[in-house]
Amino acid sequence: MNPEQDAPAIRYVDGRWVMPGLATAHSHAFQRALRGRTQRRATRAGTFRGWREEMYRLAERLRPDDLYAISRFAYTELAMSGVTAVGEFHYVHHGPGGRPYADRLELADAVVRAARDVGIRICLIRTAYLRAGYEQSAAPAQERFIDPSVDEVLMDLDLLRSRYADDPNVAVAAAAHSVRAVPLPQIRTLAAYAVANGLPFHMHVCEQRGELEECKAEHGTTPVALLSGEGLLSSRFVAVHATHLDEAEVAALGDNRSFVCICRTTERDLGDGLPTTSGLLCAGARLCVGVDSHAGENAFEEVRAVELDERSRLEMRHAAAEGPDLLDAATKQGYAACGFDGQWREDRVCLDRDDPSIAAIDPELASDAVLFGATPRAVKSVSVAGKQVIAEGRHDRHEETLNQYRASLQYLEMI
Amino acid sequence: MNPEQDAPAIRYVDGRWVMPGLATAHSHAFQRALRGRTQRRATRAGTFRGWREEMYRLAERLRPDDLYAISRFAYTELAMSGVTAVGEFHYVHHGPGGRPYADRLELADAVVRAARDVGIRICLIRTAYLRAGYEQSAAPAQERFIDPSVDEVLMDLDLLRSRYADDPNVAVAAAAHSVRAVPLPQIRTLAAYAVANGLPFHMHVCEQRGELEECKAEHGTTPVALLSGEGLLSSRFVAVHATHLDEAEVAALGDNRSFVCICRTTERDLGDGLPTTSGLLCAGARLCVGVDSHAGENAFEEVRAVELDERSRLEMRHAAAEGPDLLDAATKQGYAACGFDGQWREDRVCLDRDDPSIAAIDPELASDAVLFGATPRAVKSVSVAGKQVIAEGRHDRHEETLNQYRASLQYLEMI
Repeated sequence: MNPEQDAPAIRYVDGRWVMPGLATAHSHAFQRALRGRTQRRATRAGTFRGWREEMYRLAERLRPDDLYAISRFAYTELAMSGVTAVGEFHYVHHGPGGRPYADRLELADAVVRAARDVGIRICLIRTAYLRAGYEQSAAPAQERFIDPSVDEVLMDLDLLRSRYADDPNVAVAAAAHSVRAVPLPQIRTLAAYAVANGLPFHMHVCEQRGELEECKAEHGTTPVALLSGEGLLSSRFVAVHATHLDEAEVAALGDNRSFVCICRTTERDLGDGLPTTSGLLCAGARLCVGVDSHAGENAFEEVRAVELDERSRLEMRHAAAEGPDLLDAATKQGYAACGFDGQWREDRVCLDRDDPSIAAIDPELASDAVLFGATPRAVKSVSVAGKQVIAEGRHDRHEETLNQYRASLQYLEMI
Repeated sequence: MNPEQDAPAIRYVDGRWVMPGLATAHSHAFQRALRGRTQRRATRAGTFRGWREEMYRLAERLRPDDLYAISRFAYTELAMSGVTAVGEFHYVHHGPGGRPYADRLELADAVVRAARDVGIRICLIRTAYLRAGYEQSAAPAQERFIDPSVDEVLMDLDLLRSRYADDPNVAVAAAAHSVRAVPLPQIRTLAAYAVANGLPFHMHVCEQRGELEECKAEHGTTPVALLSGEGLLSSRFVAVHATHLDEAEVAALGDNRSFVCICRTTERDLGDGLPTTSGLLCAGARLCVGVDSHAGENAFEEVRAVELDERSRLEMRHAAAEGPDLLDAATKQGYAACGFDGQWREDRVCLDRDDPSIAAIDPELASDAVLFGATPRAVKSVSVAGKQVIAEGRHDRHEETLNQYRASLQYLEMI
């Protein structure tokens, strides 16, 4: 295919700006319920670890219906922002105390059902979480994440792939949660499974400096260096965050044409620091973006932050990416990182040309205008594989979605 | 007054969240036309200086009607985001070649009229711009900014104060553009005028490192240190940007209870770097925010970035400000920096409780939920001094505003 034709573009059609659907390749949908509830110093949420405790408190009490309701609400909000494909990094697998559900896939199914009911694509990224950490015992919430061995993870992956095989809007990918939560031999096993089955393989890597220290203590090196040395980076590897990298790690991700999924809204919220975005792009890594903790609702803001925060770090303009690069990251690359290679062509977002955020733009610079300027209010309609998801800025089951969400938050004593 | 009563708050009234109006204390409304048009490396906009040349190209060609149309469009967009008071840092004063208009206030009047026609408050910050720089000759656009002496500036300030004396929604403040554009003796004169007349006194300071070097070459020190040594900081001084400060400068701004107007959307766009926000707050400075170049349209994003970017810099959560602090910066402090002390109590923004960005929030944490989470789509109605400006998310003269804006951009050959 002609590379020109293969590049996502924004075109003016019938009085609206039409663009491909946006992908968010890294989501923990249930964390949407925490937005606005972890911003006080007085709570334990004042540090990353404190925030994680709040998240555990929520995860501990989630029923399958709550996970469904919160995810459906979160995905509706994403769809209203132009998102048509989500990568759900799913790690809450079991019932309280770690007891598997009768249907082992009960919770995975809840999030897949939420995405289907909203009408967007979902990649269920089945995440292995085998321990709390190196020589650490598990908190009660973590028992819901943990499998006794990697065999259960592979079994679930097989089950998931078979259960959703007929639905082109559902993909399955493999993940190791992190170097902290999965010992190296099992990371090897998971990566090999992903390669053998042609699946993307996702991992949280190098998000916080503390994580680097823990990895050094166990492995003598930092996460990306460890994976690189093991030969586990590839063109289907998705490094989530990758905030704190040395030059050799940047080069390794680039040489392998790996994906780097940057989640600036969450990373800013959690105080992760500033990634070396321009270095990654120059080295050949493929950028995509993720809503992660759902700290923000604006998919345009999420992707432009990739460039804007690199400008803050380097104190220069045009640090890494122009409009077309951001459009590529937000659509084609995000789809590929979710195993929906090429399917970005089937999904579309129509923007109101009169919305002040993008009114009177220069057609030659439409991708700059939209990626650097648009607000979700400009999103008028969204369709996935020809089926309308959002019309006139709203989802037709908005009220029902909202009521279910409120009921779950009430049960969880969050309102 | 009881300090509790004097603190801005967000309350649930008749099914909506009601908050005071938001202030943006630093705006160059005409720059709104550049949004989305300066993001390519191939253009000269690839550096701060390149961006400034693009801005000059626009400023050079602006007719009074264009300034009115672009400002009215920009203010409408701000009002749709909940902004009820704008500080317009106005420095395009004269006709082409620097010839004063028959009415010297023609252009000032255009922006004031724009704000009045939209229905929001405006502080016309009459900005002295006396030279291109130390031993530098003026570019053609700069001729429109430059007055032959400070006397013309003081004359205009007198004229403006008299012309708008009867309108409680129009305030006047004084400004020196920067240490670059105003020699020290004239900065002293302007500051004295502001003190004598009880006006806020605004200045761009320490935005870019190059500016620090220029100031050192002329004055042997950096801008805030210079002003501090001259005794020109005060509780009515508004330091715009103040990105690159040393500890003594932070302390000086704090000791004087000066305002610091942080403009993160623009600062991120221009690659200015990361301000020391927590240090300023701890020292006692009063933070407010500004839309500056109108690179973004989201007043909530503008203010939360004050905290979020400080988290990126310090790599920690809860770096400087919680929800109530951000609300204070976005309302009360911004109003005070614009000379509208106390008037924030008269203006209100009503938010749709069902907008996904703020649905099902914890009433005890409403300011966190709104300041960290809200999107302009949630803004349902806005009123200024009891008069409705926005209803159901729209301005009733939206179409006319948009048509005038488009006509101006066509004249300017920008579409």
